[in-house]
Amino acid sequence: MEQVFSYEQLYEFTRKVFLRIGCTESYAAIAADSLLSADMRGIDSHGIARLSGYVRLWEVKRVNASPHIRIVHETPSTAVVDGDRGLGLVVAPFAMQVAIDKARQVGSGWVSVKNSNHFGIAGHHAMMALEHDMIGMAMTNASALVAPTFSIERMLGTNPICVAVPAGEEPAFVADLATTTAANGKLEILQRKNLKASAGWIQDKNGNASNDPHELKKGGALLPLGGDREHGSHKGYALGAIVDIFSALLSGANYGPWVPPFPAYVPIPEGMPGEGIGHFLGAMRVDAFRPAGEFKENMDRWIKRFRSAKVAPGHEKVLIPGDPEREAEADRKVNGVPLIYSVVEDMKQLGEKLGVEPPVAGIL
Amino acid sequence: MEQVFSYEQLYEFTRKVFLRIGCTESYAAIAADSLLSADMRGIDSHGIARLSGYVRLWEVKRVNASPHIRIVHETPSTAVVDGDRGLGLVVAPFAMQVAIDKARQVGSGWVSVKNSNHFGIAGHHAMMALEHDMIGMAMTNASALVAPTFSIERMLGTNPICVAVPAGEEPAFVADLATTTAANGKLEILQRKNLKASAGWIQDKNGNASNDPHELKKGGALLPLGGDREHGSHKGYALGAIVDIFSALLSGANYGPWVPPFPAYVPIPEGMPGEGIGHFLGAMRVDAFRPAGEFKENMDRWIKRFRSAKVAPGHEKVLIPGDPEREAEADRKVNGVPLIYSVVEDMKQLGEKLGVEPPVAGIL
Repeated sequence: MEQVFSYEQLYEFTRKVFLRIGCTESYAAIAADSLLSADMRGIDSHGIARLSGYVRLWEVKRVNASPHIRIVHETPSTAVVDGDRGLGLVVAPFAMQVAIDKARQVGSGWVSVKNSNHFGIAGHHAMMALEHDMIGMAMTNASALVAPTFSIERMLGTNPICVAVPAGEEPAFVADLATTTAANGKLEILQRKNLKASAGWIQDKNGNASNDPHELKKGGALLPLGGDREHGSHKGYALGAIVDIFSALLSGANYGPWVPPFPAYVPIPEGMPGEGIGHFLGAMRVDAFRPAGEFKENMDRWIKRFRSAKVAPGHEKVLIPGDPEREAEADRKVNGVPLIYSVVEDMKQLGEKLGVEPPVAGIL
Repeated sequence: MEQVFSYEQLYEFTRKVFLRIGCTESYAAIAADSLLSADMRGIDSHGIARLSGYVRLWEVKRVNASPHIRIVHETPSTAVVDGDRGLGLVVAPFAMQVAIDKARQVGSGWVSVKNSNHFGIAGHHAMMALEHDMIGMAMTNASALVAPTFSIERMLGTNPICVAVPAGEEPAFVADLATTTAANGKLEILQRKNLKASAGWIQDKNGNASNDPHELKKGGALLPLGGDREHGSHKGYALGAIVDIFSALLSGANYGPWVPPFPAYVPIPEGMPGEGIGHFLGAMRVDAFRPAGEFKENMDRWIKRFRSAKVAPGHEKVLIPGDPEREAEADRKVNGVPLIYSVVEDMKQLGEKLGVEPPVAGIL
């Protein structure tokens, strides 16, 4: 059973929750905007469903609601940002703005971030570049759930990469992908529906292929994009590793199996080599390469050509990266955001705890 | 039947072949170095086996042996390089040097290249950054062999990405991967050995899964990393598309189905929107983020921790990206490069045609 809420309802509730835990007006607005971009784009696992999780991190003092986010090292085209244990939802937009400012000055800007927390969806931050006629990039590491090829140990997070590219008449190209075969959120959906996972998504604690979506709770691991060696899992592993290196080795955040977990009840790893979790944000001005109009005309041609590629029987059309999320957003703007029962209950409990009135479903 | 040659033998032969088609001394040496790095690193499909193919491109005037390679647009951290139809084997090192020079000045350098040809292995160019304590990146587009998810049309090349990261005591991390499940070279090996391909590598002309390694000749297509939608092929497709955009849309090279093919007998696509094929090279100075010593210490710790991750039963060890290629190189430096019969014959014919003495096997 799902209940439907308007964006404005969810935004007001989320903003007030962030205010209640001590965020400034500005940070509360930015954090609500970041978080809910996931719900709007149809990535339900990363949106308001996680709001109570962020609050629990604040309760155990692993999130600083009023951080002093700052640049601690920089060159004309690069910087390291210290997130001061803030919400990644506000730290990442700060860092992306630094990248955009640098790109405006010297053509490109690249910012590695330490001492942060989960930043929601990568797409939200990368897309900040689009209105400036820049290509945006965003990556983050995350707590270890993924076993490298030939291993049974969880060593990497689902470590997503987003690249957002502006076009002309066509909507922007936005590729936002976890470097695993399937994101953890997909397993959660299978668990709720009592369905089996596909081959190549997970393995059990002994490294055997498994279809059981509960495998992570039994010591199993998610698999890198590709699934197994024969299908290129060493490439997915390498991509996840690159995200880890750019996000944490360049900045001084934690990496590999030492990345602190999102659930507040899971203990922090021992012997952590860095501070918090790490992100990597980048921006390249399109006209640092060629006139923006020329670039965008060619992007339009690229997009139109791929959209009209011959379709395989049984499929409707060839998609451009970002199409499904943009369609979800257009739909949810008009028809509201459907939330499952457990998320609605979670909002109610959170509202009671913090003294914030939860929204009432169905009033759009 | 394989015959074994020393690196020096192959280098002298290759260098002389490039001199004979009109390369300068300097370009002939750079091109031989680029090309043979593939043989040394065990990527036999991209090395001397392709030498006669490069010469045939020169014969049909699609390669300019003495190009005027130049920067046509730049900002402090970015540039577009026009390869003047030169061998990618020399154009890419030129562009990578521009990226390195810019990184030295402003922290990072990013160069998109048009009007080039195939550049050999991405790893060779990305690794140029390592000795400068920089992270190196290299990508290239290539002629269309890959069908996007839900399509039966070949729209993208195998579009590789390489990221090379310096370490301290440990050897560098070098991830060099085609954005397909399996590279075309692997299919060629199966063809020779009369073996079947794995599921997820290729599809037939109607979009059905296939195990026939000859499928490409019958109108089939390679599949993006992931294989099918259920296993994340939309991610491999997006990665290949990003390579295409960075390499060609930023520079003004050809893209998508319009990228000119490597075999000289295959006609050039109609209505090409750009010039030649495109590459993208990047360099980031490690100390543009944090002191190089600190970074490299942490890279060592990262590498050691991943190398010691718990191994799945039936496997020997967990690899770090770049391990197999480095081991191949160490072996071939000592024991020489084994070449299959058809490649040895190809060298002989090429030598006769151009008046260059081919090397004699077995004299190491």
